[in-house]
Amino acid sequence: MASPTLTGRDWPIDEAAGRDVRATIPDAFRLESGGRLDAAAVVGRLHGPETGPLVVVAGGISSGRFAARWWSWAVRAGGPVDLDRARVLAFDLLPGRDEAGVTITTTDQARLLALLLDALDEPAVDAFVGASYGGCVGLAFAAAFPERIGQLVAISAAHRSHPAATAWRGVQRRLLAFARDCGREAEGVALARELAMITYRTPEEFALRFAPTPPRAAGEPYPVCDYLIDRGAAYAEATSAARWIALSDSLDRHAVAPGAVRCPLTVVGFTSDRLVPIEDSRELAARAPNLTRLIEAPSIFGHDAFLKERELVGRALHDALSPLYALPQSTLAREIAA
Amino acid sequence: MASPTLTGRDWPIDEAAGRDVRATIPDAFRLESGGRLDAAAVVGRLHGPETGPLVVVAGGISSGRFAARWWSWAVRAGGPVDLDRARVLAFDLLPGRDEAGVTITTTDQARLLALLLDALDEPAVDAFVGASYGGCVGLAFAAAFPERIGQLVAISAAHRSHPAATAWRGVQRRLLAFARDCGREAEGVALARELAMITYRTPEEFALRFAPTPPRAAGEPYPVCDYLIDRGAAYAEATSAARWIALSDSLDRHAVAPGAVRCPLTVVGFTSDRLVPIEDSRELAARAPNLTRLIEAPSIFGHDAFLKERELVGRALHDALSPLYALPQSTLAREIAA
Repeated sequence: MASPTLTGRDWPIDEAAGRDVRATIPDAFRLESGGRLDAAAVVGRLHGPETGPLVVVAGGISSGRFAARWWSWAVRAGGPVDLDRARVLAFDLLPGRDEAGVTITTTDQARLLALLLDALDEPAVDAFVGASYGGCVGLAFAAAFPERIGQLVAISAAHRSHPAATAWRGVQRRLLAFARDCGREAEGVALARELAMITYRTPEEFALRFAPTPPRAAGEPYPVCDYLIDRGAAYAEATSAARWIALSDSLDRHAVAPGAVRCPLTVVGFTSDRLVPIEDSRELAARAPNLTRLIEAPSIFGHDAFLKERELVGRALHDALSPLYALPQSTLAREIAA
Repeated sequence: MASPTLTGRDWPIDEAAGRDVRATIPDAFRLESGGRLDAAAVVGRLHGPETGPLVVVAGGISSGRFAARWWSWAVRAGGPVDLDRARVLAFDLLPGRDEAGVTITTTDQARLLALLLDALDEPAVDAFVGASYGGCVGLAFAAAFPERIGQLVAISAAHRSHPAATAWRGVQRRLLAFARDCGREAEGVALARELAMITYRTPEEFALRFAPTPPRAAGEPYPVCDYLIDRGAAYAEATSAARWIALSDSLDRHAVAPGAVRCPLTVVGFTSDRLVPIEDSRELAARAPNLTRLIEAPSIFGHDAFLKERELVGRALHDALSPLYALPQSTLAREIAA
């Protein structure tokens, strides 16, 4: 059933797996802000077999259409999002890196995805699996296009942004703008990424991983700094300040009424998440009219648990998607149901 | 007993209250790093009556010898640190704002305070009340000069720095260095202050105080951003990047063996403190050989609770210092003792 070039039990999947798909953005397309995008097209990538249920996967602001680049353990043949059984669509978030001054919403991202589905002649997705930013887009998609979604799995994402997360992201945006203003944008991106990385993780993880060994002189890095500097440097060229500002702002602008998310909904939240407090995941679950399941779990990885807690997230995905594959649910699901 | 120019029931105390005292830093004085200070003197300020027990107060990195500027509710006539009854010494942390490249430790700060006590011909302090950075200096002072301290009250301060706090401060230091490098130091100080302010507070406070109202366009401030921008701007000229880097680094370099703190010790910690986790306050209390009392409390203010929780901190100070004033302990102390 699966095309041999797209699947195979190899892990991680070949980055080149899949084929690009695109939808022209009509001239008349306006963002909720009233603005327009310079981009001519929405670009996605279809992974997996030629037929089968259609699953959209969407991740954090640094994710994109190459699912293998950001969620290779989840999206693979035989994996929780099973490339042997499902067609998996991922897509690039807009704006592109060269567009400045864009005010975009998660609903706009959902509308752009709808354009892509139109171009693919797909009336609906069987499941939308979104984590972090992608979870927000999934909620916005479910609210805006209730007839086009079979079910939603929202991981490390809620219906609203928390003011403390806005505080952290606001400083990142001002840092990005400052560095760009200084003509040293890549350094600003690296430094903002350092800051962001701390918010993605937990103090407990840092305490376990990093010794407090002081450097020779003030201003030099401690072990935890070496790690952050490294993560920042690796990201310096990954995005532009303008694109990051637009996506960061859209997270803070994100607000979806839980009652509008009418499809079957699985919410996965982590008690250590400092960007999406577990209380917000609980509130989303409590107010959604068609909750399948709320899974809340501890994790030493905080917001990044959606990337790191393979066992728990994998089982949650498997359980949510197994009806699409006509497979039995996992022990986890049976235990929780018991 | 009190000099009328120095005290009075007015609140806050007159900023000009007290008199400056200073100690020349000997040529031979070397920092633990082996370096020297450009500063010629340690400058302190004595508040309160001419006689009475001597209480040192030391606060955060932005505190200094004018106690009224940073702890006016605590240090005042009739207050928890009672200017009617105690002589109160505060001092300026070194390095000064024009010194670059200084690697200083909390033990160095304690040694500089010892110079000041020598100049005042004071063999010992009756009590050292230190909060945040000042608490670290107090711990270092108690360890380095056990014969020169009657008791220590350490608030929102522990014997070591937490790697997550180092992570936050490290990003601030690199941001300060970056802005200085760009020739826009004051803007860097403001932005680093914004970041620091978030670490001083809690998500719960931000959620209560700030609406999620989005601005017109991406890059513009949300309500929580307005607050942070305001706090940053107010601090832009308060310090230099170099001085902040030195003091910030010295917090991460801070490491005092709890067993070396042999004087009677009161530890006050807040469960919401994200820079000094309550576990570290507990560990300090558990391992100190002469613990008077560990007070741990919730607060919506996180690390800044030492500035904001007037009732609890005030009572803790009163209880610790009342034997010096020969006053009865408060209800709080009796309740805890019961």
